[in-house]
Amino acid sequence: MPGRIAILGGTGPEGSGLAYRWAKAGLDVVIGSRDAARAQEAASQLRAKIGPAAKIDGADNGVAAASAEIVVLTVPFSGIAALLKQLKSTWKPGHIVIDTTVPLAATIGGAATRVLGVWHGPAAEQTPELVPKEIPVAAALQNLGAELLAGDAPVDCDVLVCGDDERAKEAAMELVEKIPGARALNGGKLENARIVESLTALLVGLNIRYKVHSAGIRFTGLPGKPPA
Amino acid sequence: MPGRIAILGGTGPEGSGLAYRWAKAGLDVVIGSRDAARAQEAASQLRAKIGPAAKIDGADNGVAAASAEIVVLTVPFSGIAALLKQLKSTWKPGHIVIDTTVPLAATIGGAATRVLGVWHGPAAEQTPELVPKEIPVAAALQNLGAELLAGDAPVDCDVLVCGDDERAKEAAMELVEKIPGARALNGGKLENARIVESLTALLVGLNIRYKVHSAGIRFTGLPGKPPA
Repeated sequence: MPGRIAILGGTGPEGSGLAYRWAKAGLDVVIGSRDAARAQEAASQLRAKIGPAAKIDGADNGVAAASAEIVVLTVPFSGIAALLKQLKSTWKPGHIVIDTTVPLAATIGGAATRVLGVWHGPAAEQTPELVPKEIPVAAALQNLGAELLAGDAPVDCDVLVCGDDERAKEAAMELVEKIPGARALNGGKLENARIVESLTALLVGLNIRYKVHSAGIRFTGLPGKPPA
Repeated sequence: MPGRIAILGGTGPEGSGLAYRWAKAGLDVVIGSRDAARAQEAASQLRAKIGPAAKIDGADNGVAAASAEIVVLTVPFSGIAALLKQLKSTWKPGHIVIDTTVPLAATIGGAATRVLGVWHGPAAEQTPELVPKEIPVAAALQNLGAELLAGDAPVDCDVLVCGDDERAKEAAMELVEKIPGARALNGGKLENARIVESLTALLVGLNIRYKVHSAGIRFTGLPGKPPA
């Protein structure tokens, strides 16, 4: 069972969708936000939806991260560096970071069907530069649409987990598989997150062209079957 | 019914796989190669496999392109510019180009799990610069593995078709759907081919990590069902 999960930027659609699925699966979740009151409000709405036994709380981003083992980043790309700088003194041994960031051009007013060119390649490779060396980072969950996560149906999606640290990848894979229908796949090194990130822009384009809201991705030809 | 299809670089595994599937579907195919004799040899091998009625021939790349309506590029990225320069005087009104190129780093001795940074973004956006303005280009078929194409089983794969010209996209989509199991999806503008191209590198990585040969991709959450 994974330890407490802080979802930073968790009042946004992606973060609150993940909070919903994980709290519903019985995990211990804290929603982080710049505004502690908003985070608490989001948490109590989700508790109302799941039931009083749900282990879900809200706090300021720093407090949320400090109280958790796994820190999931769901803020827009334009806010990630400022957030990580603010957390500088929060990190402690044992923390694991899961980065869901996609550098969509929409973050600076461009199109959600395009990604920005990040110096590092993937946005996820910027993150290890902004946290202490000892804190491992995995990139995952970039391609799961917020609308899918907000619902109760199993998602018909694979989730690629990329990273250079096995412990972080395992933690991410474990969390992915708590979401009904989601299959965690080993996406290789963190550098591969650039491809996974750009897939989100492609899915946004498919949503627009096919007038749907939740295009997703499955990989075929792999051993085993994806969960139903 | 599409017109004659020239598959340039068609003696390679990807090109000959496409030639096999299309000739088997009753289409009129000519394999192009730098070496006309090798192209003819590849064509007669495929004819032996499909049956004597197969409309499949081999020729030098230029002769093949001149005789066809649809010109499919399946040469390695490192050879594409030289090939297109050589074809300069071959183009005629009515030609349609379908570019399957992926700028894998393997083309210059690097890893097949990485793509090169092409100035244009996608390799497919270099192609319209190297053919006359009137010749429309669509990018497609980058993610269908050669082993899948060489077999007889339906492929369990979607094929994203990207382009800025509707006629070229329609021709590509029609050809895709001649391959049993393949579903053609509208991938949007040619600029999006950069994402589709990088997906091939990701699939190569999945093949390696999962010890398979034919990882593929399907999109979920779209209207309709993919073909069985």
